[in-house]
Amino acid sequence: MAGNSFGQAYRITTFGESHGGAVGVVIDGATPGVDISTADIQEQLDRRKPGQSSITTSRTEPDTVHILSGIFEGKTTGTPIIMILYNADADPSAYDEIKDKFRPGHADYTYLQKYGIRDWRGSGRASGRETSGRVAAGALARKILEARGVRVLAYTKRSAGIECVDFVPEEIENNPLRACDPVAAERMLEKINAIKDIEDSVGGVIECRISGIPAGLGEPVFDKLDAELAHAMLSIGSVKGIEFGAGFAAAEMTGSQHNDQLDESGFQTNNAGGIIGGISTGEEILFRIAVKPTSSIARAQQTVDITGAPQTIRTEGRHDACICPRIVPVVEAMTCLVLLDHTKRQHAMHA
Amino acid sequence: MAGNSFGQAYRITTFGESHGGAVGVVIDGATPGVDISTADIQEQLDRRKPGQSSITTSRTEPDTVHILSGIFEGKTTGTPIIMILYNADADPSAYDEIKDKFRPGHADYTYLQKYGIRDWRGSGRASGRETSGRVAAGALARKILEARGVRVLAYTKRSAGIECVDFVPEEIENNPLRACDPVAAERMLEKINAIKDIEDSVGGVIECRISGIPAGLGEPVFDKLDAELAHAMLSIGSVKGIEFGAGFAAAEMTGSQHNDQLDESGFQTNNAGGIIGGISTGEEILFRIAVKPTSSIARAQQTVDITGAPQTIRTEGRHDACICPRIVPVVEAMTCLVLLDHTKRQHAMHA
Amino acid sequence: MAGNSFGQAYRITTFGESHGGAVGVVIDGATPGVDISTADIQEQLDRRKPGQSSITTSRTEPDTVHILSGIFEGKTTGTPIIMILYNADADPSAYDEIKDKFRPGHADYTYLQKYGIRDWRGSGRASGRETSGRVAAGALARKILEARGVRVLAYTKRSAGIECVDFVPEEIENNPLRACDPVAAERMLEKINAIKDIEDSVGGVIECRISGIPAGLGEPVFDKLDAELAHAMLSIGSVKGIEFGAGFAAAEMTGSQHNDQLDESGFQTNNAGGIIGGISTGEEILFRIAVKPTSSIARAQQTVDITGAPQTIRTEGRHDACICPRIVPVVEAMTCLVLLDHTKRQHAMHA
Amino acid sequence: MAGNSFGQAYRITTFGESHGGAVGVVIDGATPGVDISTADIQEQLDRRKPGQSSITTSRTEPDTVHILSGIFEGKTTGTPIIMILYNADADPSAYDEIKDKFRPGHADYTYLQKYGIRDWRGSGRASGRETSGRVAAGALARKILEARGVRVLAYTKRSAGIECVDFVPEEIENNPLRACDPVAAERMLEKINAIKDIEDSVGGVIECRISGIPAGLGEPVFDKLDAELAHAMLSIGSVKGIEFGAGFAAAEMTGSQHNDQLDESGFQTNNAGGIIGGISTGEEILFRIAVKPTSSIARAQQTVDITGAPQTIRTEGRHDACICPRIVPVVEAMTCLVLLDHTKRQHAMHA
Repeated sequence: MAGNSFGQAYRITTFGESHGGAVGVVIDGATPGVDISTADIQEQLDRRKPGQSSITTSRTEPDTVHILSGIFEGKTTGTPIIMILYNADADPSAYDEIKDKFRPGHADYTYLQKYGIRDWRGSGRASGRETSGRVAAGALARKILEARGVRVLAYTKRSAGIECVDFVPEEIENNPLRACDPVAAERMLEKINAIKDIEDSVGGVIECRISGIPAGLGEPVFDKLDAELAHAMLSIGSVKGIEFGAGFAAAEMTGSQHNDQLDESGFQTNNAGGIIGGISTGEEILFRIAVKPTSSIARAQQTVDITGAPQTIRTEGRHDACICPRIVPVVEAMTCLVLLDHTKRQHAMHA
Repeated sequence: MAGNSFGQAYRITTFGESHGGAVGVVIDGATPGVDISTADIQEQLDRRKPGQSSITTSRTEPDTVHILSGIFEGKTTGTPIIMILYNADADPSAYDEIKDKFRPGHADYTYLQKYGIRDWRGSGRASGRETSGRVAAGALARKILEARGVRVLAYTKRSAGIECVDFVPEEIENNPLRACDPVAAERMLEKINAIKDIEDSVGGVIECRISGIPAGLGEPVFDKLDAELAHAMLSIGSVKGIEFGAGFAAAEMTGSQHNDQLDESGFQTNNAGGIIGGISTGEEILFRIAVKPTSSIARAQQTVDITGAPQTIRTEGRHDACICPRIVPVVEAMTCLVLLDHTKRQHAMHA
Repeated sequence: MAGNSFGQAYRITTFGESHGGAVGVVIDGATPGVDISTADIQEQLDRRKPGQSSITTSRTEPDTVHILSGIFEGKTTGTPIIMILYNADADPSAYDEIKDKFRPGHADYTYLQKYGIRDWRGSGRASGRETSGRVAAGALARKILEARGVRVLAYTKRSAGIECVDFVPEEIENNPLRACDPVAAERMLEKINAIKDIEDSVGGVIECRISGIPAGLGEPVFDKLDAELAHAMLSIGSVKGIEFGAGFAAAEMTGSQHNDQLDESGFQTNNAGGIIGGISTGEEILFRIAVKPTSSIARAQQTVDITGAPQTIRTEGRHDACICPRIVPVVEAMTCLVLLDHTKRQHAMHA
Repeated sequence: MAGNSFGQAYRITTFGESHGGAVGVVIDGATPGVDISTADIQEQLDRRKPGQSSITTSRTEPDTVHILSGIFEGKTTGTPIIMILYNADADPSAYDEIKDKFRPGHADYTYLQKYGIRDWRGSGRASGRETSGRVAAGALARKILEARGVRVLAYTKRSAGIECVDFVPEEIENNPLRACDPVAAERMLEKINAIKDIEDSVGGVIECRISGIPAGLGEPVFDKLDAELAHAMLSIGSVKGIEFGAGFAAAEMTGSQHNDQLDESGFQTNNAGGIIGGISTGEEILFRIAVKPTSSIARAQQTVDITGAPQTIRTEGRHDACICPRIVPVVEAMTCLVLLDHTKRQHAMHA
């Protein structure tokens, strides 16, 4: 009922606040007998960690993962796997400014409304640091999927008003935006740095492609593959929308334009984005998500405090001018969680 | 694991194929003691039924609901409520054309891939008729919510390239598009009829507004209110995308533009669409979904049959040239399911 | 959250009150492609139906099952299967006596306490008739399991103070008690009829044996196979206890007596009852349940009415003097549900 | 699907092996704003820890709990609470004897059958040490329940053939058996020490009483309160049976003897054990569980190794001659989990 678990057959539960003792994840339902090392997990976590470039926060967080159960002699045992990242000692006085004021765009106000109590150190549970657990659990799912030929690739498609023109997958990890077009990436970087200088921030569009997935995954009528991916993506902070295949452009097309016709070599087009009737077609799965601009900006904003009195707030500190490159590994991780979960569910259906 | 249930505390399970014995729903977790009549349910079903205008199918389906359990002397008892709509006897020979051919844009191919067997009468389980159960269950949820001041209103925002300019809620049920602008509706109707004449179809954008919802609903970090609404909407056939508040436009904004600042009267703007950190803010919740054009078109299309041999197919018959007006009540129903479920979950959290 | 569903991968939801419109079940997660007929289901329902002998109720209920979805051309399709049994028109005036009085041993009082409202026609949702849905869903599970060599056999072990001495499986369906010893059955019948004559009732002990189940089923640490079977059995009305293998007698043994030692031919004994650490060993699974005497007796009893005023009540009518023989098929059905669900879960674990 | 979570609205997930890095629990759904300290949790863990008397193991395990999330300034925040107990460095060579041999009565064989891989250090996941997480999560549930007047009390009712005659609740924590009768406890202790001297072990019967629980808890028809308690209890290692109220003795009674009649002061008897129709009556809830003798005995036993070859095994070391006193706090903890979960579920039902 409370919502800190995701998935059914490969089920994760994340825990932790940004300035409590630790963040992490418990995985239940990991396939037994899979080779996995701490390094496999750490590799993905390092893609999400702060301090990777001028446009992401320079905060230093101890992002070292510790695996304390469920792995024996380098293999999964089928029992729950806990992966934990301890937090460094934080100076709570650093949060005096935000203790009693609601930061615009942040979940400060809504958490207090929901729970009647709020951990005001950093963003508490609503911190992006929570996604570490997702990335860690996704890294194991990814390893299992990759061994079966599945590839999940996300990248920044658009940011600061600049769109990628080329698609050069091997360049994605070589630019600070994780954009799929190195030229566009260069221009994005320049523009974002300029926006950062005037104490502002940007968002963007992230695209994700999945190849190698067999036809038949997805559980109609409610747990359709696209419905579950949408659930997964909208559960990531800052994500405000998702579209599959032609997406919102489909609303402008006619049936004869949009329908993917078939011939003996398969589907001739892929407007559907690889999912029809909520079930994978075997074609590439393609979706895009909208990422809002980072809420934390140094610029003065109007707000109220917990008594309702008007206040001015400036969220000082080291923030991400554009969060897209750090969301990319989270998108991939959540995608892997959905895909492995549905692989297992499809096996259960046919057992 | 199989995906025919939705919700946790107000949980529904739908059943039925378009040409089997019946379609319907079982509701588990209905608040006991609520006044409800068959007419309350039928009213919503009638909004979804075929034959409402020239742009929707003229098929006649017996859409009469029967409630067989869980209601006693006009009140819910807290036990499961089954609502069932019997199917009329169908002539299976009407499906000879599609028995062995995959209709482009339909789930024929993917159902066969998933299950290894396919009910080829109509669209089987993938038929829009399945949503009757959702609408029926949503009608009860709506009644409970409305008694608490919640209002859920969906409408066609855009179709056939025409966008509503005005927002005139009282006109929505007065035009065949269920558009919020009667002038735009007129133009949409004209254009869709023209497209229908050339054996084609259109989609559109549906917008949904929720008012009267208290702050605090939504279950971070995975069952955020927007994540659950996205799950609900993408589980509806033909829906290819969703966006909240500013949505994809947020990806083009800066933080200082997008952040909703607060003063003593509350939020000054609502770019967030009424949900921050996955929790309702108490402002109006606003989202839009992309609806693809109806897959069934009479125009000849290329496809293959179950042996993989190329075929031409024409989906003759009485189809919806634009499905938007019939999806509107489904959007509202699924929204009501999410809202009541989360209301109950919030009560459980605080118990 | 409400509790009308059982199982995860093979999940059933039952609905219906004894004197509402119908009772039945929706199955989600049925393996697709399985041959199944209405007769397969009806056969099991007929074992549960009233009127089979002098010691069970002579009430006539229309126990004819109708399958309205999820089966196509004699095979399961993987979509939800609804099986429904319509109720005959009941004369509500027959319930005037119990409308306002709580019958001792019945759930009248607790349902009113829980829900604040009560369907007082018969036992409403708490009627044994609800188990029809379980038996129907179990009949399909049984068919799938039997094709894999699994056999589930329950029988009355003890009733009216008489215990079966012999175990003659082929005699179980040949006596009205469904006892495993025809001689004991004869004596039970005689004694129960005598007790019935003095307007009283009895209970008994039912034993269940499962053979052919592979080692490895059960999901530690909470969904152990015995924990799930216990859950299943205690969810059946009138069941007050369960024990596995040596059961309560194990509490009197020493470790050296109780431990099942192994040699090259396997386990030398089966005190564990075929489950160790919550996982099937591959040996026969054996458990026993305690069934309380039928609550409905014609003898005058003290009770109160809904105002709290003392009343005398006589539950007239045609009751089961011993419910054991009619619970036997329910025990088998619930067992099959657990076994198929766990078979599917084990497949998901290893996928 | 994998079974390491328990509960729905107050949901726990345990993790950890006896000789991995740690054991512990994540709680999701804790009521926010509840005062809780590490000492409150430690107090219950200390009742379960080894080394409390001559009849329980003298192994020293570091049973110190660390709470790393979900608590802020001494109060629950409604976010997941992780409680972790680190394991001391173990000497794996201590397990050479059991690495390749299956210990009779232990889950060594079944875990290997289920998962195809086994952590052979100690009992791995099947270790009683796993229950630490349950006790920790139960301690918080207990605190919430106690503030509402609920009392949960378990104790050894019978062991080594000796039954408690008196019920002296205040003596339970004063004897090493946690028996409710100090005289019987004395005799049990003597007898168990004698059995221990001959390298054997015993089990027993534990009884649990719950007072102060309101009428109306339990979710028919599957998640009846007794069904859920049975599930909870059978999920504890070594438990082989459960009975409620009169239990198996009910099978020997007539309806007129067993039915609990009512008068204006309530129920006159409590043969039902406080639950009728799966819903609490408001009377004391009473159940008993059968605990098998400890499987680890130093006496030589026959077994096979992983190649199937016959072997003799002696489980040397410091074992519990009687595990009952250490299971008592686990029984109480699991009971508290069920009761709080159902309290929350009842609130959701009526929301």
